[in-house]
Amino acid sequence: MEPVSAAVSAVLPAGGSGERLGGATPKQFCGLQGRPLVSYAVRAMERVSWISDIIVVVSPENIETMKSIVEKYGHKRVTVVKGGITRHRSIFNGLKVFAENQSSNRLLQKPEVVIIHDAVRPFVEEDILLKVVTAAKEHGAAGAIRPLVSTVIASGEDGCLDHSLERARYRASEMPQAFLFDVIYEAYQQCTDHDLDYGTECLHLALKYCKTNAKLVEGTADLWKVTYKRDLYAAESIIKDNLSQQICIITDLKEAVAQVGFLLHESLKSQVKVEAISISLRKNDSHLQNIFSGECYNFLCINDKEYATEEIQQLVDMLEKSNIPLLYPVILILVHLSISENISFSIGLEELTKIKKFAREVKKKNILVYGLLIQCKVFLLP
Amino acid sequence: MEPVSAAVSAVLPAGGSGERLGGATPKQFCGLQGRPLVSYAVRAMERVSWISDIIVVVSPENIETMKSIVEKYGHKRVTVVKGGITRHRSIFNGLKVFAENQSSNRLLQKPEVVIIHDAVRPFVEEDILLKVVTAAKEHGAAGAIRPLVSTVIASGEDGCLDHSLERARYRASEMPQAFLFDVIYEAYQQCTDHDLDYGTECLHLALKYCKTNAKLVEGTADLWKVTYKRDLYAAESIIKDNLSQQICIITDLKEAVAQVGFLLHESLKSQVKVEAISISLRKNDSHLQNIFSGECYNFLCINDKEYATEEIQQLVDMLEKSNIPLLYPVILILVHLSISENISFSIGLEELTKIKKFAREVKKKNILVYGLLIQCKVFLLP
Repeated sequence: MEPVSAAVSAVLPAGGSGERLGGATPKQFCGLQGRPLVSYAVRAMERVSWISDIIVVVSPENIETMKSIVEKYGHKRVTVVKGGITRHRSIFNGLKVFAENQSSNRLLQKPEVVIIHDAVRPFVEEDILLKVVTAAKEHGAAGAIRPLVSTVIASGEDGCLDHSLERARYRASEMPQAFLFDVIYEAYQQCTDHDLDYGTECLHLALKYCKTNAKLVEGTADLWKVTYKRDLYAAESIIKDNLSQQICIITDLKEAVAQVGFLLHESLKSQVKVEAISISLRKNDSHLQNIFSGECYNFLCINDKEYATEEIQQLVDMLEKSNIPLLYPVILILVHLSISENISFSIGLEELTKIKKFAREVKKKNILVYGLLIQCKVFLLP
Repeated sequence: MEPVSAAVSAVLPAGGSGERLGGATPKQFCGLQGRPLVSYAVRAMERVSWISDIIVVVSPENIETMKSIVEKYGHKRVTVVKGGITRHRSIFNGLKVFAENQSSNRLLQKPEVVIIHDAVRPFVEEDILLKVVTAAKEHGAAGAIRPLVSTVIASGEDGCLDHSLERARYRASEMPQAFLFDVIYEAYQQCTDHDLDYGTECLHLALKYCKTNAKLVEGTADLWKVTYKRDLYAAESIIKDNLSQQICIITDLKEAVAQVGFLLHESLKSQVKVEAISISLRKNDSHLQNIFSGECYNFLCINDKEYATEEIQQLVDMLEKSNIPLLYPVILILVHLSISENISFSIGLEELTKIKKFAREVKKKNILVYGLLIQCKVFLLP
């Protein structure tokens, strides 16, 4: 992916009351697999290295809740800001952190481009963020759009159909959106109380007050907003799907072992998303770091070394540093290959006891270790 | 609910290819808990006693699939009709069954009002059907609407924002819709090939060709259309929720037993939807029939009779007749109360063996019977 040549930060309005959801908890704080929705959205931003600051704007009564979420899930680069009584007022408060000295928050470095994204859209990918940021840098404003699912109609005063819109001409305006900071901040400074109280659409403010026609970028289906209870169900199922359908196969650099990893990859790839890499775990590999940030939670480590635990300790250290086990249990399957021509295992009883003890230890860190011992005979073809 | 004073039938277009879902199976045939989506929509119509005929319009290649679904799930009052290449052409074909003699389908009794509802909206309730039918009878046409979830925007030719619509003035047009048959049939007869090929909105045709401004009826959130894969997830979760969160407690008319049923109701009602009824199972009770058609799958039968199986056989017969066990496994928990002052059970070993055998038998019919024997001492207060 092309690097971004601008200072970029993000504002996530998370002040909604979630009344359409029909529950006491605002939807951004509803748990999906035990983790609040807002934490997924924050993490989606956090994974993108070129986003500097992430401003989460919450209603005054939820400041402490949000701060504890940031702490619990180890979110970095996040500033929690007190919201206003409407969506626009909350976003405006979020933007002020970059422009005005305030008693409650320190002044942050003003970005060239600011992303605005809802806390209740957990599945935003780097790709679409890059597209809207790039378009905003060129056009002053940009936003993701989607085709309309239903026909849009206008009703008359009698509650009867007045006219229906030609579906092809219109689009649903979704998030993320991005703006030159000066454009959107100017728009918010100029807009009326009526705008702040009854409006919701940032693109509209940029057009009305700064004559900036936003570039519209076609987004993917996963950008939808969690609005109703059914959306929480859907989001949870998508997360579960992702959890169980990704696996990373790690082998050392030895040819026989790497070959087993390759064959396993081939036979699994029709069923799950598989990454297979051959590396020395003693090195802090950047490719492995990328896999961690891609939210893979299942690892299969194949080796034929006598002292497997030492090797695997490196992986556990890396996983811990990545914060992944904080969010979900990580499944770690150790496969010890015993490749030899005699039938005795190359791994000793002492080592097995060590692995068992190791598994008990790391379980406390939310990492579940399973062991598999495979004895294979090697026939060398002439 | 007020009875409907008109002959009503329904047309369900189910010809879509489901390309937005990203799978090989059109969404209306995707299985939710093992049962195709279209079958839920058909059942939602079937449950409404005042809907005479249910016309399901499917693409030619799916005629046999649809017919086998009708047979497998025991759907009644359903006619399967061959669809056209677009949504409007399919609906038109469905309407023709009431108006033109065709070789493939017999001519059905023309209804005064026709409901049009998507096969991919499984959760339509009788209440909203009644509202649109009543409004259609008065206004000629009516349709369910919902507030817009996203702002709707118009894009210019340059791919930039032209203007955004004022959200409050517009609504999403959903289903069900209902029409005086003569109005919608006239509209379809008059409309152009361009309408038939590129249009989708029936309300629009009624307005354009019959000058009928449809009455718009606010619908509930559950009317949404299964469009994307996430919608299938959501629908499946909603169905599972309904399955597990309803229970019917059946007791006989004896006071001590009915009292246990009442107390159980009180203690369960905060967690699940509970119906508690005291009836003699030997009578074909209409209240119990209503519970069956309300899709309750969990039953708790409490009695203190010596010969429990004979009694319970009645319930199994009624369940079988209702077709419920065809769709989902029915859970039937028999609680035998032994209310006496001595410690020996009032039920004999022979009877227990009989119940066990009975449970094995009905399991084949998708009814899972569990037994519970409760010994309670009765202290008579002075």
